[in-house]
Amino acid sequence: MRVAVVQMDPEFGDVKRNIERAVSMISSETADLYVLPELALSGYLFESREEAGELAQTPDDPVFEEMAAVARSEAAVVVVGFAEKAGKELFNSSMLLAPDGSRSVYRKIQLFWSEKHVFSPGDAAPHVVECGGARLGMMICFDWIFPEVARSLALQGAQILCHSANLVLPYCQAALVTRCIENRVFAACANRIGKEVRAGRELAFTGMSEIVAPNGDVLVRGTVDREEVLVAEIDPSLADDKSITPENDIFADRRTDLYRL
Amino acid sequence: MRVAVVQMDPEFGDVKRNIERAVSMISSETADLYVLPELALSGYLFESREEAGELAQTPDDPVFEEMAAVARSEAAVVVVGFAEKAGKELFNSSMLLAPDGSRSVYRKIQLFWSEKHVFSPGDAAPHVVECGGARLGMMICFDWIFPEVARSLALQGAQILCHSANLVLPYCQAALVTRCIENRVFAACANRIGKEVRAGRELAFTGMSEIVAPNGDVLVRGTVDREEVLVAEIDPSLADDKSITPENDIFADRRTDLYRL
Repeated sequence: MRVAVVQMDPEFGDVKRNIERAVSMISSETADLYVLPELALSGYLFESREEAGELAQTPDDPVFEEMAAVARSEAAVVVVGFAEKAGKELFNSSMLLAPDGSRSVYRKIQLFWSEKHVFSPGDAAPHVVECGGARLGMMICFDWIFPEVARSLALQGAQILCHSANLVLPYCQAALVTRCIENRVFAACANRIGKEVRAGRELAFTGMSEIVAPNGDVLVRGTVDREEVLVAEIDPSLADDKSITPENDIFADRRTDLYRL
Repeated sequence: MRVAVVQMDPEFGDVKRNIERAVSMISSETADLYVLPELALSGYLFESREEAGELAQTPDDPVFEEMAAVARSEAAVVVVGFAEKAGKELFNSSMLLAPDGSRSVYRKIQLFWSEKHVFSPGDAAPHVVECGGARLGMMICFDWIFPEVARSLALQGAQILCHSANLVLPYCQAALVTRCIENRVFAACANRIGKEVRAGRELAFTGMSEIVAPNGDVLVRGTVDREEVLVAEIDPSLADDKSITPENDIFADRRTDLYRL
């Protein structure tokens, strides 16, 4: 299958423009799975919770229709980050749009820095969605630093970690390689580029979106400062093989009886 | 405190020579903690379980006396890998020799490849030893690939991962950097160099021993092919600070309620 990570530069607050840009980038490449950055529709640095609320959507919002139409017409899966409105709460979420029209949402369970003043932390375990020829697990940005997230997804059978990100720390992309090696899974990390100067802060996003193989090989890696769609042809079933020597299966070898977690 | 990793090239089967070499290398540098490679006394590629048994020691074996004497006289801690004899069983173990003469043993809980035909897997959880001005956790070689091991040690308060290794896979040293970042701990990885051609196999060990800081900085990293002692001056208490932003403590942020491990 063909996996694409869409490295884009959302414009803060312009949901309509960002959707159009995302759809245009998706349409520029043929793939079976497209992963887009965290909060790709809204931008990242909210001045306040109220502002985030105005830029948030419910999962059935019509704003997703165009992207869902692409998923249907191309028989592809699209994973995209958005600010989710749920009653009085806001979540930093990823939406998975399946070719059959179904939708699945993951709410980021570990919030980064000022996100804690805007969003509620996710209230459900990271989960696996089987569609488009693979078993997919969503994780969002800062989730990368907690090995438990990728592990939880891999143990539930995920073959590809769909990592929507707005990375700012310098070592995340390298650490994601470790996540792949230790779980023998693929990762498709869609990071954004550009800067935001808002709310008294300046954040520079690090690009270098990447697709990584279960053996740690970086199949593609983006630039630090250009919008681009990076594509790799992969066989997701390779992630089902957890052996790394004739005597070692890294899941069977786990000593859950002796960990202190 | 001064931490030293001793990158040596043990000669297979010559315990006396290897002890002398280890003591000589330890004595060449002043440090508060010396970490030596896995199976530094025996070498690695055993032809059989019987052969390993002949090269194994109990933790009170007189062969450790010279190293213990250095620990006492320098008021230093020495961590060294050895084949451990325990009744009818053999373990791939690390010995911690404390300045006060006490000894602590960690038995590798996840065995690599043909080690499974030679050793029993460790029967106790990785543990933390407080001595020499720091809280130390031992882990051995292949343990690196299981994030649960470093995590278990860090959650028990370890400030320094004492990683005795005979690494052969190409990405271990980079992955250990991830272990430090995700746990905000130091790691002192003593890897061996050289080759062993035995038991129908050839293994080339990758050197590049390293000392890594909680923020992922590689403070020192060795060559791939030279015996050397690498030293870094560190403040172990930095590992007690688990914050990475004003709003994020990576231990307090863990969502143990939502992991599926």
